[in-house]
Amino acid sequence: MAKDTRTIEELSPWEDARRMLAKAKDEGIATVWDRLAEQTPHCTFCDQGLTCNKCVMGPCRVNPKGPKRQLGVCGADGDLTVARNFGRFVAAGAASHSDHGRDLLEALESVGQGTAPGYAVRDADKLVRLCAEVGIETKGLDAPDQAKALAEHFFEDFGTRRPALSLLSRAPKKRREIWDAARSTPRGIDRECVEMLHRTHMGVDCDPVSICLHAARTALADGWGGSMIGTELSDILFGTPRPATVEANLGVLRADSVNILVHGHSPVVSEMILAAARDPEMVAKAKAVGAAGINVAGLCCTGNEVLMRQGVPLAGNHLMTELALVTGAVEMVVADYQCVMPSLVQIASCYHTRFVSTSEKARFPGGTHLEFTLENARDKAHEAVELAIEAFTRRDAGRVDIPSVPVSLRTGYSNEAVLEALGGSAEPLLAAIKIGLVRGVVGIVGCNNPKLPHDGILTGLAKELIRQDILVVVTGCATVAMGKAGLMTTEGLEQAGVGLAEFCSRFDLPPVLHVGSCVDNSRILALCGLLADALGVDIADLPVAASAPEWYSEKAAAIGLYAVASGIMTHLGLPPNILGSELVTGLALEGLEDVFGATFVVEPDPVKAAEAISRRITAKRLALGLNDRFDGAVFS
Amino acid sequence: MAKDTRTIEELSPWEDARRMLAKAKDEGIATVWDRLAEQTPHCTFCDQGLTCNKCVMGPCRVNPKGPKRQLGVCGADGDLTVARNFGRFVAAGAASHSDHGRDLLEALESVGQGTAPGYAVRDADKLVRLCAEVGIETKGLDAPDQAKALAEHFFEDFGTRRPALSLLSRAPKKRREIWDAARSTPRGIDRECVEMLHRTHMGVDCDPVSICLHAARTALADGWGGSMIGTELSDILFGTPRPATVEANLGVLRADSVNILVHGHSPVVSEMILAAARDPEMVAKAKAVGAAGINVAGLCCTGNEVLMRQGVPLAGNHLMTELALVTGAVEMVVADYQCVMPSLVQIASCYHTRFVSTSEKARFPGGTHLEFTLENARDKAHEAVELAIEAFTRRDAGRVDIPSVPVSLRTGYSNEAVLEALGGSAEPLLAAIKIGLVRGVVGIVGCNNPKLPHDGILTGLAKELIRQDILVVVTGCATVAMGKAGLMTTEGLEQAGVGLAEFCSRFDLPPVLHVGSCVDNSRILALCGLLADALGVDIADLPVAASAPEWYSEKAAAIGLYAVASGIMTHLGLPPNILGSELVTGLALEGLEDVFGATFVVEPDPVKAAEAISRRITAKRLALGLNDRFDGAVFS
Repeated sequence: MAKDTRTIEELSPWEDARRMLAKAKDEGIATVWDRLAEQTPHCTFCDQGLTCNKCVMGPCRVNPKGPKRQLGVCGADGDLTVARNFGRFVAAGAASHSDHGRDLLEALESVGQGTAPGYAVRDADKLVRLCAEVGIETKGLDAPDQAKALAEHFFEDFGTRRPALSLLSRAPKKRREIWDAARSTPRGIDRECVEMLHRTHMGVDCDPVSICLHAARTALADGWGGSMIGTELSDILFGTPRPATVEANLGVLRADSVNILVHGHSPVVSEMILAAARDPEMVAKAKAVGAAGINVAGLCCTGNEVLMRQGVPLAGNHLMTELALVTGAVEMVVADYQCVMPSLVQIASCYHTRFVSTSEKARFPGGTHLEFTLENARDKAHEAVELAIEAFTRRDAGRVDIPSVPVSLRTGYSNEAVLEALGGSAEPLLAAIKIGLVRGVVGIVGCNNPKLPHDGILTGLAKELIRQDILVVVTGCATVAMGKAGLMTTEGLEQAGVGLAEFCSRFDLPPVLHVGSCVDNSRILALCGLLADALGVDIADLPVAASAPEWYSEKAAAIGLYAVASGIMTHLGLPPNILGSELVTGLALEGLEDVFGATFVVEPDPVKAAEAISRRITAKRLALGLNDRFDGAVFS
Repeated sequence: MAKDTRTIEELSPWEDARRMLAKAKDEGIATVWDRLAEQTPHCTFCDQGLTCNKCVMGPCRVNPKGPKRQLGVCGADGDLTVARNFGRFVAAGAASHSDHGRDLLEALESVGQGTAPGYAVRDADKLVRLCAEVGIETKGLDAPDQAKALAEHFFEDFGTRRPALSLLSRAPKKRREIWDAARSTPRGIDRECVEMLHRTHMGVDCDPVSICLHAARTALADGWGGSMIGTELSDILFGTPRPATVEANLGVLRADSVNILVHGHSPVVSEMILAAARDPEMVAKAKAVGAAGINVAGLCCTGNEVLMRQGVPLAGNHLMTELALVTGAVEMVVADYQCVMPSLVQIASCYHTRFVSTSEKARFPGGTHLEFTLENARDKAHEAVELAIEAFTRRDAGRVDIPSVPVSLRTGYSNEAVLEALGGSAEPLLAAIKIGLVRGVVGIVGCNNPKLPHDGILTGLAKELIRQDILVVVTGCATVAMGKAGLMTTEGLEQAGVGLAEFCSRFDLPPVLHVGSCVDNSRILALCGLLADALGVDIADLPVAASAPEWYSEKAAAIGLYAVASGIMTHLGLPPNILGSELVTGLALEGLEDVFGATFVVEPDPVKAAEAISRRITAKRLALGLNDRFDGAVFS
């Protein structure tokens, strides 16, 4: 197998990653970097979005400026081909988040019906608040009935009959008018995804702009629909996150314990695994085979879910998932779905590690499939933990290498927690923004991508931004990067500008706030809606921006697009496969400004990216009549 | 531009096509065959389904047996890559049919609400029957309230909360048990499409078999859901088809008239165009500019819709759509959606022809966009017809060439009409099948594909089958092929075997029955359900088969898969892009037999295809204890 020609030092800045990359090499284990090397160079047509496989008159490769192949067999040109591909790319991302949201909805309904033993309403106040928000009268209803009524309500958001999704009410009026004008108001979550597939079938929508606008609508159905419902219901079912300090990096694995890694995106399975692992009976069984205990740690977004709510340590992000197994200290990976590299099964098989899949919709040949349902989850979780304990007995101590000591990071900044930390309202943050103590807020989100130095753009950008008095909120795989870089404790304030440091110190906040998993980017949308309403402006008027510097997935594309369509300028470290169309690329980088008041910015260099973001924030501040820098006013 | 190296005679057997191909060549107009020549050879990776563009760690090209690139960057092997692509391919097809069905549902609801002037319930009996079938009490409800109640009911089939789609009740109990066992029972129409997108996101379903089974579920959601609802509601709103004789081929264009071609798939717009064109005021306007009248003719499935219900002549199928414009006699193409080649706008611009798009979700840059809604359709249709009349004044008589004289064909064989023709029940057909007068029934459906000789496999197969006493039912683009081949009148019985000829003569039926458009393949499913129930067997036990010999589209793949998953062996003239995976290919050609009792057969030669189908029918007859040939019994 071909190897990446970059040195291990170039691949990742982290000691835990480097040590495991070296161990993988020694042990002959191929990783995502090796496979990328083999797949490089990529097909130019595919890379530019100019390939079409959507019917068997083709497949076609469109070469817009070439001497031939300027059109596909159907007559589609390069712009249409790129737009169709991008539309489907976004739809798949939106579908993934939304199908995840649906799972929470089914869980809520089952809790209401009493058919989900092991699950319960853990934040009854939030349930009541949500009911009130969508117009459900809760007086006289007990929590199960409230749960059923709320589920009933949100099921309709997945359907066809609404003129607009119910949580769009969280967006400012001006924003909703912009969506209406652009015909991008999402009606049904599933509907928009399905219509995107329809539009991109041969001979349906042949207008690249129209397809891109529907892609925005589909993405908005994710951000203000599927993802937002997923977040809110996860809080109701598993508790709304509250600030806590937890540990992260591969050092959270314990040489003396049964190590179980929960991986994927949904809290529905991982919460049950955690409960089983904390069951004294299970702990006793672990001790009986010589372990000190059972240690659950998280990977990827499932990791973020249990980190935010349960303080479970975070072992790593996307590019660390394979390397975590290379420690030789992992008894089990329990996966639900999304971003679980199929390679993990193969790498697990090189060790004593059991790979357990749990979802009907995500099976992994070669792994162990324990199918979790809402009815059986508690039992299945115990079954999984027992298998992990059994695996511990087969661990080869000679192959165990747990690198580094864990870092500490603060987590738990749900919007509720942020407001609470500020004393009950967003006023102090708004005041700090107005006087320039905090110049703006930027969400740094998304994945890793082996094409880019691991966590390098993420942390480089965050450091630049906080240095310039810009508060950073972080989700998903970006989280552990920031934690490793020391930006998620108040010690990180040493790297922040004077204004931001003062503001954060006042409220005992780190300069980078962890707001959750990737679906929890919906928290950022809701927060933006709240801030805009408080200022009486549109989201596009706020001194805010977003960035997914090391993104890789279709979901990230959906997130980026719903951010832009919500009026939030969004930086990407590398472009989607759209460069084959000047029209689509121009729309992404410029044209969307006229439609939604925001665009994408593509820039692999974190310092330059920070400059672009800072310029945007400056412009927005000036347009609001604010000084760009701290104006010396007293911050009370 | 490269030209197809095949001679015009090799491209199409029809005089109208050949003459237009020659005219296109003379006039320097590129057609789909020219573009295919340019796109040939196709990329081997894409052709085999081994390309993946589903994240930006790639794009990847997987080479399962190669020295490198055996895995994508995420670790996906060839089987997984092919399965993911095929899953999405099917989902896009199912989504297209189903989103079309949704439009009929919205129309029905609007009719019920009184907000769709120009539309009405035209088959009140069928509305009552449907209501009764799904359990709606109609006593005391007037037609608008029935319409609203039925719409309400079917909207839920698009949602999330049903354990199974409501019209699955039309399938035999044994078949439904098979679906349950394979976890392929479709729950919600949109839901299955969205879950397919989710499953094929990186790191979700990594089991090719599991993905393929969900593809079957998604396809079933189309056949027994979106398409079936589309068909039934179209009948309610526009009338259930009844037998009639109509004309077909490019000869239906009239040199002396304003020619309007309706193209696409939905009756919602085309019925309004037809009504406007028949409005005496519009006819007078046409005459005022020197035309003899207004001639509406159909293309593709919209053509089938208005052919079946209104006797509108059919100008041609998929490969004839461009050539129809080359006559120089077409004033206007009015397109709704699906299978409308983007090239048509360009070709229209070479003549006086106006290309009019009508759907919000299907715009065509360079054409005229007249957006039809349920509220404004009547007015917009008049507007369109006036534009066509205006275009007539710009027609260049010197460039007009209308080839051939039209052929006659019988149409209108809805299930209701078939039963009526048989005297009120399926009994005579079952009796004929039992004694071998009719050996079996085969649905020949689907598109054209420029890779194959135009209509050649379609008609070659049909001729072989009817010769062997197999009754053929036909839909979509297959229709006009059969008509041109003379198989859709009782004169066609001369080409039929003795048994089939006797049966058809008895009931005044042609050997090839036209049952509708592509969504109307759902009629064939329902008929199979009815026949199976009458015999007390499963659909897979029936001496039936399906074929899409010249298919090209994602929708056709969905149709083929729902047929197979319904127990109906399905022949394809060329394979989908799955040959890169032995596992997926093996599943399609063999493995599905164990799951669903049927498989695909891929065979470009019509005689060999007929042999394979006939063998299947023989086997099914013998298993039912029937003689394979007419057993000499008296047919009463």
